[in-house]
Formats: sequence, structure tokens, C-alpha cells
Amino acid sequence: MIILEDRQALNNWVEQSRLWGGKVGFIPTMGALHEGHLSLVREAQKTCSQTIVSIFVNPTQFGPGEDFNQYPRTFAEDKALLEEIGCDAIFLPSPDVIYPEGGQTFVSVEPLASQLCGASRPGHFQGVATVVTILLNLVRPHVAYFGVKDYQQLTLIKQMIRDLALAVDVVGVPIVREEDGLALSSRNRYLTIKERQQATALYKALMAAKSLFQSGETEAIKLEKAAHLVLHESGIEQIDYVEVRHKETLACDLTVVDPVMLIAVKIGKTRLIDNMVLSS
Amino acid sequence: MIILEDRQALNNWVEQSRLWGGKVGFIPTMGALHEGHLSLVREAQKTCSQTIVSIFVNPTQFGPGEDFNQYPRTFAEDKALLEEIGCDAIFLPSPDVIYPEGGQTFVSVEPLASQLCGASRPGHFQGVATVVTILLNLVRPHVAYFGVKDYQQLTLIKQMIRDLALAVDVVGVPIVREEDGLALSSRNRYLTIKERQQATALYKALMAAKSLFQSGETEAIKLEKAAHLVLHESGIEQIDYVEVRHKETLACDLTVVDPVMLIAVKIGKTRLIDNMVLSS
Repeated sequence: MIILEDRQALNNWVEQSRLWGGKVGFIPTMGALHEGHLSLVREAQKTCSQTIVSIFVNPTQFGPGEDFNQYPRTFAEDKALLEEIGCDAIFLPSPDVIYPEGGQTFVSVEPLASQLCGASRPGHFQGVATVVTILLNLVRPHVAYFGVKDYQQLTLIKQMIRDLALAVDVVGVPIVREEDGLALSSRNRYLTIKERQQATALYKALMAAKSLFQSGETEAIKLEKAAHLVLHESGIEQIDYVEVRHKETLACDLTVVDPVMLIAVKIGKTRLIDNMVLSS
Repeated sequence: MIILEDRQALNNWVEQSRLWGGKVGFIPTMGALHEGHLSLVREAQKTCSQTIVSIFVNPTQFGPGEDFNQYPRTFAEDKALLEEIGCDAIFLPSPDVIYPEGGQTFVSVEPLASQLCGASRPGHFQGVATVVTILLNLVRPHVAYFGVKDYQQLTLIKQMIRDLALAVDVVGVPIVREEDGLALSSRNRYLTIKERQQATALYKALMAAKSLFQSGETEAIKLEKAAHLVLHESGIEQIDYVEVRHKETLACDLTVVDPVMLIAVKIGKTRLIDNMVLSS
């Protein structure tokens, strides 16, 4: 496995990998890798001849007061995990490799970026859209893999790639969960033992809504209420949102046909998100 | 010469042109071609094996009350001109080929886009940056050619390409002028005979500033005053701006070393721009 730290090294690797029609799969990450990330790599390995993971804690997608400085940096472990599953390359840029001095350009996706997580994290998705554009232009993969865990991010990236006519396929890879249902997240490691127990309520809330939907309830507000109830009962007080939305567009829909439920809460100081397509 | 109207046809042509290392040169235009555009094509032909011109009057770079509807559409003449000089292909998309329904994404370059022409044409450069990104992603040229006539546009596109790491070289091609100095522009055809005569004042104003600079004057305000005087004497009353700026960044500079002067005026209902690097 090769570690690429600058544009020239990356470009040489990309050129080499694309020779003779090789297919490049790309997984952008912020490191602190867990089984969820590894499932993306395995998915890429199924169809791509070369797989590259980027590890870059992107400063522009963190707001003031967010956890940019505390965000876990675990490169030695990340590298060992990727080596073990046979990843081909890591792109490990420093901030100035991604953002040379004097940059003025950003990519916006509106109104998608202002809703849900975007409402409480202003600028977050502009940071995401811009860094993903830059990474895709540098890596030039055939396929890019994103976790369904970040459902709004995945929807936004698909929208952006379509709108800007970027020549890359996007694959969303299902959420990986702990045995008790908690979705894997790099931020789970912030949780105390008590908070970790509370956190299982997100999955339970989604399952409650799903079961209600599958028993015939299609009013968004009632599905949301059922999920709220589960969260409250677990003692989670800082609920950012519990929303049922259109599965493809994330548009609001009062009476839902093929909906996704999205949840964001804070448990202590840790912000957690989860989601579930209710019909599947 | 082939005319490509949809993405599939364009993509087939691009794939074919890039085979065996062919070099693709791209000239994005809004049609109404004149010798200025043709000089871009000729420049491309010097080093590229295939040259493609896009003709697309981009709605998103026109503001309300601007001349989108009146903008000259002269495809038959454009085609004849391009055929004559041996251009290989025209990309002639309809708006829905560039902007499929439901688009939400735009590219911004700030603060560069808010100054000079951007100050009086809000949204203009966001429209330019977005459409150029889309066109570059669709055409995937090795080199893209832009006229120095639109100096701020050229500067902004260079900045955007650098910031987003787009894999394309940009070449700026010098202004082509009439014998009396008027810079060629598709909008010149809006001018009445009297206005056409007045319009020569832009070149004279630039030349006055240049001569003053070359005689040792480096105070921006004095160079601007000299140009203003020429414009006023010609009877031009609607002066949008006369500015001396840093040649590379377009930053303000009170005492200039290697400056460009940029002028924008309205003559009657027609907005004209021109510029000159004062040191060369």
C-alpha cells in the first residue's frame, strides 16, 4: 500500500492506475476509520482494479465551536486497517495540498445544504461540496463510495455531481451497526458509557417509525411523533430534528410513499445522526 | 466539422479525440462570432490536434433587465466562419443539456466575483463560473482558450480552475481590435454610427493611461483620472468604472508596479468593456 502526500505523487499513481483501462475506486474519509469505512473499501474492491482512500480532516466543513480540533486523528491504526484489507493507496494531504494559499472558490448546493444538518451547521455542506469537488478532480476516480449513514451528504453529493456533470459514478454503501443497533461513527468514541447506552435510542426510534409505517401509517407527523417518543423515553433531550422526507430529494412530504427518516441529536457534547428508509 | 447537440454525441467525440493521446482544445463562446473568437480558434489549432467551440448563450450569467433576449444569435454565420478556418467540432447544447431540471449547484469565486463588472452585474460571475465548470467537465479539454478582452472573467476562471484543481490548462488570447482601436465584441453590433464613433474613446483612454504610466506615473488615481478625462471629452457619460489593478490578482493597489487598467462604460444602452496592461 502506497501513501501519497502531494499532488504530484497522487497524479503519478492515478495515471498509472488508469493505464490499460484500470478502474479506480475512491473513498474520501476523515480518518478515524471503523468497520463502516472498511465496508466502503470492500465494496470498491468488488468492482475496481485499484482502490484509494483519502484521509483528510477538512477544516472548512467544521463550524466555529465544532469539534475540528478534537476530531480523532488515528493514522497509525487507520493505516494498519487499510493495509490489512488490501487497500492500494492512501491519499494523505496536508491542508495546503487541498487549499493552496489565496483560494476564493466554493461550491454550493441550495436549498439542499440549508436543511436538516445544514440548518444547525451553517457552511458545513458548502465545505463538504467544495472539498469533495477538489478531491474528485485530483483523484479522478471512476467510482466514489460514500456511506448511507451521512444520508444528506450522500444526497447532496449525488446532486452536485449531476449538476456539475462530474464524470464519476457514486455508490452509497449501507450503514454498519453495532449489535445493539448503534450506527458506527467516528464520533461514537466521544461517548461515555452512559451516553453510549442512551445512543441506542436512535436505532430504536427509527425502528419504531419503520414498524408504524409498515403497519400502514403514512402521515409524516405521526411517524415523527413515534420516533420522538422513543428518544424522550431514553432521556435524550437535545433533539435537533426527527424528519420524514422524500427518499431521493429529501423534500418535505406530508403523506409519504417511500420515505426516509432522518434523526440528529446531541448526547452530552456529541452530535449523532442516523437514518432509515422506512419502506425497505 | 461536426455539430454536437447532446451529451452523448459530445462524449463520443471527446473519447474519440483523446484516443492515442490526442490533445483537445476548447473555446467556450456565446456565438455571434467575430475575429476575436476566431483568433482563439487559431491559437488552439497551433498546439491541439482537435479543436471544439461551444456556442451557448448562458441564461444564468445575464441579470434581470440585461440583454439575454436581444443577445445576437447568428448560428448560420458562426458555423460558416468555423468551417472556413477548419474548426473540428461545435458543441451546440440547448439549455436543458447544460442544466437538467432540478439543478441546485453553483460555483462562486469571492471576492473576485463581486468587484468591477461583478459589482454592477450581481450574479454574473457566479453564472460564468458555474457554466464554465459544467462545460469543462463535459468537454474535458486539455487546454481552454479565453479572450483577454474579458479580463476579469479570465482572471476568475484561472482562479477557479486552480482552486478546484480542474485538470485543464488555460490560455488567454490577446484582444483583437478594429483599426481605430475598438476592441471586437459581439455587443458592438448594438451600436449606432454615432455611438460607434464614441466607443473609440475606450482605447484612447487606455492609451492615455499607458503613455502616462510609461512616462513614470505610478499613482493609480492619476492614471485613472487621465483615462476619465478622455472618456468625458468624447461625451461618454455613463462610466461604470475606470480602475487600475494588480495585473494578476485584480487587487487594488495605490501605487502600481505592473498594472492593468480596466474600463466599463455604457454608450446608449450598450455596455462595453476594455482593458490594457499598462507596462507592456
